[in-house]
Amino acid sequence: MDVKKPKSIVIYSGGLDSTCLLYKINKESDTMALIFNYGQRHSIEIERAIDNCIKLNIPHKVLDISFFKDIASSSALLDYNKEIPNIRDIAGHAQPPTYAPNRNMMFLSIATAAAESAGADKVYYGAAEVDTHSGHWDCSLDFLKNINQTISLNREHHIEIVAPYITFSKADIIKDGIANGVDFKNTHTCYKGEEISCGTCSSCASRLQGFLEAGYIDPKEYVISDKIPWKNYNCQAL
Amino acid sequence: MDVKKPKSIVIYSGGLDSTCLLYKINKESDTMALIFNYGQRHSIEIERAIDNCIKLNIPHKVLDISFFKDIASSSALLDYNKEIPNIRDIAGHAQPPTYAPNRNMMFLSIATAAAESAGADKVYYGAAEVDTHSGHWDCSLDFLKNINQTISLNREHHIEIVAPYITFSKADIIKDGIANGVDFKNTHTCYKGEEISCGTCSSCASRLQGFLEAGYIDPKEYVISDKIPWKNYNCQAL
Repeated sequence: MDVKKPKSIVIYSGGLDSTCLLYKINKESDTMALIFNYGQRHSIEIERAIDNCIKLNIPHKVLDISFFKDIASSSALLDYNKEIPNIRDIAGHAQPPTYAPNRNMMFLSIATAAAESAGADKVYYGAAEVDTHSGHWDCSLDFLKNINQTISLNREHHIEIVAPYITFSKADIIKDGIANGVDFKNTHTCYKGEEISCGTCSSCASRLQGFLEAGYIDPKEYVISDKIPWKNYNCQAL
Repeated sequence: MDVKKPKSIVIYSGGLDSTCLLYKINKESDTMALIFNYGQRHSIEIERAIDNCIKLNIPHKVLDISFFKDIASSSALLDYNKEIPNIRDIAGHAQPPTYAPNRNMMFLSIATAAAESAGADKVYYGAAEVDTHSGHWDCSLDFLKNINQTISLNREHHIEIVAPYITFSKADIIKDGIANGVDFKNTHTCYKGEEISCGTCSSCASRLQGFLEAGYIDPKEYVISDKIPWKNYNCQAL
């Protein structure tokens, strides 16, 4: 790795959770961000990610893993012919069409390799167990424990995967981001990947619910902005 | 995945172990091979891999993960300025300079993603625990068990990673390959990546030792061919 040796690596998407994580870890450690271009429909998130890294002066690499689009086309994030469903239509589904097969383990494996090569001993990722309920088994505490147990078998390099938000609600993550100065306008969440967020995909819905619960107004623009009941909440404008 | 739906996926390098594995699995299951271009110095193995897939009429994909060269340059397989050591010089090292950080977990994660997307339920890889002694912790039975335990948390897709050679000696693998009709001349093992193998890197040394123990002559050409004591063995020519 050709940057100043980082002590940790953050897996960074440019979304809400991992941006809050990046701001948090940047205060604690010399870190470096790995950003994945995996053929995601919402590749606009990569622009947000790079922008935040530049603003925070964090070394970062965008890794081209666009082969993933070719081998994991069961996901609506990767096969653009598939519809991004409305949150209402996937309630009760074990895994929604937007689930990307084994993506998190792939990200963690690559980040662990980078950490090992660079001599870093921590890999941070922004998983929250609350997402397990929407079919993302690879955001669970059990997953985290098991993957750490696997990499602990490497006796020469001791690397730990840390997910500081694993037990947080979305509202808790947002509050942590606010405390660390995150510019939420400069994050991207919507699966549809347009500049103006839809507000109705599962990713937008979870974000909006988080802001509503946290008592803050989300500064992003939404197609359904008029229908978001900010006025019914005692929100503090950002 | 745009090929006929495979029942299994083989992680295939074009080396000795995974070629024997490919021939074996091809007899048992509709399979598909994933070949990784990860910036390896011995990328000549990819040509051998493609050639064997074509001969066996096995669907295959070559995945470009050459970003790995950039993030995992601690390995002499990826940083071409580093020397490939002679087997004599690395005896007793826990991890030799040719060890590629967390490479196997990355391969397995990607292959599992492909299996999940394609509806396949097995991922085969050619690990042999005997290589654990040369610092490859990610060829161990413990590693295999742990990674299977991790992916078993995915309750929607049941995929098993299978390593049929995990307890085999190199000689046993060679014998299995012979039984299944492997053309060993059309495999590549040497880390240096030249057409004529060096015979002295750890990879060549392990292969040659395997042939000597199995009682067969390796049909590959070696720089040190004159010094290999085939004549002292009761070898059966291939």
